[in-house]
Amino acid sequence: VLIEEGLEILDESEAMRLLANSEVGRVGVTMGALPAIFPVNYRLLDGAVVFWSSAGSKLSAAATGAVVAFEVDDYNVADRSGRSVLVVGPSEVVDDPDVAFKALAAGLAPFVDGARSTIIRIEPTLVSGRRIVHVPPGGGSRSW
Amino acid sequence: VLIEEGLEILDESEAMRLLANSEVGRVGVTMGALPAIFPVNYRLLDGAVVFWSSAGSKLSAAATGAVVAFEVDDYNVADRSGRSVLVVGPSEVVDDPDVAFKALAAGLAPFVDGARSTIIRIEPTLVSGRRIVHVPPGGGSRSW
Repeated sequence: VLIEEGLEILDESEAMRLLANSEVGRVGVTMGALPAIFPVNYRLLDGAVVFWSSAGSKLSAAATGAVVAFEVDDYNVADRSGRSVLVVGPSEVVDDPDVAFKALAAGLAPFVDGARSTIIRIEPTLVSGRRIVHVPPGGGSRSW
Repeated sequence: VLIEEGLEILDESEAMRLLANSEVGRVGVTMGALPAIFPVNYRLLDGAVVFWSSAGSKLSAAATGAVVAFEVDDYNVADRSGRSVLVVGPSEVVDDPDVAFKALAAGLAPFVDGARSTIIRIEPTLVSGRRIVHVPPGGGSRSW
């Protein structure tokens, strides 16, 4: 187990599993030279992160052809436990109706009503994951 | 009620309330010319976002003196409802022991064991919030 800055580094299969089993993530983009983060509901489809957007939206403009960050986590405030996965990669607008059909078939419906007609796809070039590890007073290592 | 791209824009008091009442947020920074997002547990202290970090960490290096993004949300997958708040502002490392004491008094303890000795503070220069609004088939507007 690799520990870095007090956090356990997840192996790639666990990171991809967390990514595959979450439904809400956050996209980090640059808008007007300023950083921004937007939550999206998404699916992992053919190994890539996909989510709905609308063609003229600020998010789809910022994400088109840019390298973006995408993060999911499952933090639990009650016991201070949690894991997170960070994806970094190029994003693109996908106009292929087959991808839209596949996304809907995978249960990816826009949370927002109407006007979400475009799919944005993030290719996960870099994937990294971290887990909070607590060492109990008795010694040894315990992780959630 | 202002609607933008299918989302209701929160007024500033509601955005600040969501920020004040959440405990886990995500920080968006640039690291080695690439975007990155990290979850942190935080508090709103004297109107600013504060969280623990360690002096030599990658996050504190990236956040020192930079303009960063900070996001909180309360999305609910079951009923496709949710709100999010985006903060953008300069961040700095705070070495004032009084701030550390105040943060601990406000219940802000690092989730991660040991080696979290520095406080990072984000000044919320820009605050914006959005809410998903669903229009029921019968017409009218219903929001969660």
